[in-house]
Amino acid sequence: MTAKDHQKSVSKNTSLSVIEPSETYKKAKLDVWTMFNIASAKSKAVNLGQGFMNFPVEDFIKKAGADSIVLDSTAQYPSPKGSQRLLKALSKRYSEALGREIDPNTEIMVAAGANEDGRNETVVMEPAFDQYTPNVAIANGKTVYVPMRVDPSLSPETKVISSNDWKIDMAELEAAITPKTKVLILNTPHNPTGKVFSLEELVQIADLAKKYNLLVVSDEVYENLYYDDTEHISIASIDGMFERTLVIGSMGKMFCVTGWRIGWIIGPERLVSPCLAAHKRIVFVASSPLQEACAISFEQANENGYFERQRKEYIERRKKLMDAFDSVGLPYSIPHGSYFLLVNANKVKIPDSFEIPDYVAERGKGFILSYFFTVEIGIGCIPPAEFYSEANVSLADDYVRFAFCKTDDIFEETARRLKKITNYY
Amino acid sequence: MTAKDHQKSVSKNTSLSVIEPSETYKKAKLDVWTMFNIASAKSKAVNLGQGFMNFPVEDFIKKAGADSIVLDSTAQYPSPKGSQRLLKALSKRYSEALGREIDPNTEIMVAAGANEDGRNETVVMEPAFDQYTPNVAIANGKTVYVPMRVDPSLSPETKVISSNDWKIDMAELEAAITPKTKVLILNTPHNPTGKVFSLEELVQIADLAKKYNLLVVSDEVYENLYYDDTEHISIASIDGMFERTLVIGSMGKMFCVTGWRIGWIIGPERLVSPCLAAHKRIVFVASSPLQEACAISFEQANENGYFERQRKEYIERRKKLMDAFDSVGLPYSIPHGSYFLLVNANKVKIPDSFEIPDYVAERGKGFILSYFFTVEIGIGCIPPAEFYSEANVSLADDYVRFAFCKTDDIFEETARRLKKITNYY
Ligand SMILES: Cc1ncc(COP(=O)(O)O)c(C=O)c1O
Ligand SMILES: Cc1ncc(COP(=O)(O)O)c(C=O)c1O
Repeated sequence: MTAKDHQKSVSKNTSLSVIEPSETYKKAKLDVWTMFNIASAKSKAVNLGQGFMNFPVEDFIKKAGADSIVLDSTAQYPSPKGSQRLLKALSKRYSEALGREIDPNTEIMVAAGANEDGRNETVVMEPAFDQYTPNVAIANGKTVYVPMRVDPSLSPETKVISSNDWKIDMAELEAAITPKTKVLILNTPHNPTGKVFSLEELVQIADLAKKYNLLVVSDEVYENLYYDDTEHISIASIDGMFERTLVIGSMGKMFCVTGWRIGWIIGPERLVSPCLAAHKRIVFVASSPLQEACAISFEQANENGYFERQRKEYIERRKKLMDAFDSVGLPYSIPHGSYFLLVNANKVKIPDSFEIPDYVAERGKGFILSYFFTVEIGIGCIPPAEFYSEANVSLADDYVRFAFCKTDDIFEETARRLKKITNYY
Repeated sequence: MTAKDHQKSVSKNTSLSVIEPSETYKKAKLDVWTMFNIASAKSKAVNLGQGFMNFPVEDFIKKAGADSIVLDSTAQYPSPKGSQRLLKALSKRYSEALGREIDPNTEIMVAAGANEDGRNETVVMEPAFDQYTPNVAIANGKTVYVPMRVDPSLSPETKVISSNDWKIDMAELEAAITPKTKVLILNTPHNPTGKVFSLEELVQIADLAKKYNLLVVSDEVYENLYYDDTEHISIASIDGMFERTLVIGSMGKMFCVTGWRIGWIIGPERLVSPCLAAHKRIVFVASSPLQEACAISFEQANENGYFERQRKEYIERRKKLMDAFDSVGLPYSIPHGSYFLLVNANKVKIPDSFEIPDYVAERGKGFILSYFFTVEIGIGCIPPAEFYSEANVSLADDYVRFAFCKTDDIFEETARRLKKITNYY
């Protein structure tokens, strides 16, 4: 029998006993991105759901990409640590940001994402970007959640508040730490609240990390996106913290190219090298030409004022989206960082006649509200409920997240469609 | 205190109690790529170690890259499954290769690498590309090894043999399967032997997989690189096997761009969807512009005869490297697939005066031999010992792997330097 004959004899309908995927994966719920992207597409919603940009990439970044991709020198495996030119660019940037010399050879790792490891406990402040939990779960760790809270006397259901009114109760955070706790996850500027942690807050968190000997994973992917009188401070720049902190950054957020998939981890060699070991094993050195493009983008961004320009543009985008919600009287938290508007839709009453699929309904009020905005109002969004643990998810009952990394036509259409919501107060 | 003041007060020499990396990572040995890349660089060896190409990428592939990277449509997050255009190109290719319609929406996943999951046993035929073991270990699975063997009557220490003389004893393979075994890993065309599994062998393996209800992970990254009278056959094309097989492919190997980091998994929806779940969680959708570039490269490769041209060129490269070893009388396995030459250096006697660092010496004879070729002869290579479990590593004592994905000047310099080896017989 030859291979060709054999292939012809392949039957398409064999009835083999099923090989079962492992329990971990069977329990996985439909993820919120898939759920709401589908709902948005079906109902032709303007999509303010996922945080990708729909405006064009700046030319100098595209050119950096096009110049890098035709190089034979970037066509082959880079060092697992990252390309030399990018390591140098990152060393320069973070040496300035963290107020200390960052060694490009030992204190930086370039990644296509970030992973964790261990059987210990991790403390996460919620709402928390939803990729953390599954990562910790995959690594068999236990996650303990401490919610950010808004003082009820601020009446967030009726009044516009500041994203910095979302506060961590430090006593509650301390109480969540057990002898098994090894890691604390922090995210500033914060998704989805827009909060930019103040120096005072960071010092308090740092004190706890030192007291209990915790590793801090500091997700700073929105590090350039802080507005008004805030300033992004890395917890790693606080006295004694560099030694116990891994700072995570992202080219996607920094240069508005979420599809290019370049990220990095900065920290002391002792903490970076195990990341590097994991990274080499799961074999995903980041794409070499895009690392080069990232290096060039950094080199030029400082000269051409990209980061200031970007901040200015995001402030304009934020204003347009806030204006739209102001004009229908829905309150929100003014985001002093990142590119999300967290709206409090407490006063929206969903009519009994509105049809809700089971897979949405079973996820609770926050999901239902976002589904209503997406399908009935035609504005795609994401339920921050996804960013909460089951114990605290009711804190997200009133909240809907809208991304403002979008173009003006989207904001205009959003404002137009949003008028309809006033029928449901 | 302001942030600026605070940053100034950062001390560089705090004496914090150390946060320990987890046991898994502390035990990690220096990996072979790092070890031999460093040795090669230090001793200015011509580098035939790692399997990256040093010849230029064909222009149509570069152009595909440059055209894709400037598109705003590829700048943002692709679907976690992969970009539509690439899924379509892969569906076309694998529908032909596997003799059945491959559904681009459910039976393909585009990745930047491949991972596994579970607490079960995995059977691996060795030598096996070294990324499998750590992956299985990270996922807490146990790996059981079954070595390929060469019939000693062929005298591989003195005679050139065929890569297809490396054989799996099917009774030994069957004996390694326990009730806990869930996965069998196969690699054809094979790294490092060059073996291309025959239909007869694949049918025997398939029969075992069916009998014991195993999932087969079939690493076919060298699927285009088969020579002489061999032909690459995917085990997934064998009757009843598609249902239980995940086929793994790589753009890096297919289009000679190992640094672009695009790979894929093909299989039935039931098996692909848990991969997709894992993949979304560890958040490494592959770079979007490079997926587009890969799609375009596939579309054009079929028209411009790329794969035939590539095969022809590799046959020429193989000849040059085999000639070099022929002229010093060192035997090897003629590689009928992939791009590695496995040389049997049994007759090389390493002089007592040759200095061997501990981290090499402790890894055994195979490592020492490769280190000798790299440092003393000046030809960088890789010890296939790395691809064996501890129990079987002595099978690799005589072997050294040389990659032939290189340019003519490298082969000429290799031939020149290789003469020196005859002083050590
Ligand atoms: C807080 C936070 N961290 C990390 C990420 C992931 O960034 P990347 O796209 O670079 O993987 C996101 C993306 O939305 C995010 O919001
Ligand atoms: C057998 C085998 N599988 C997989 C890979 C990895 O391929 P990629 O570079 O696409 O991750 C290699 C690379 O050498 C290999 O030899």
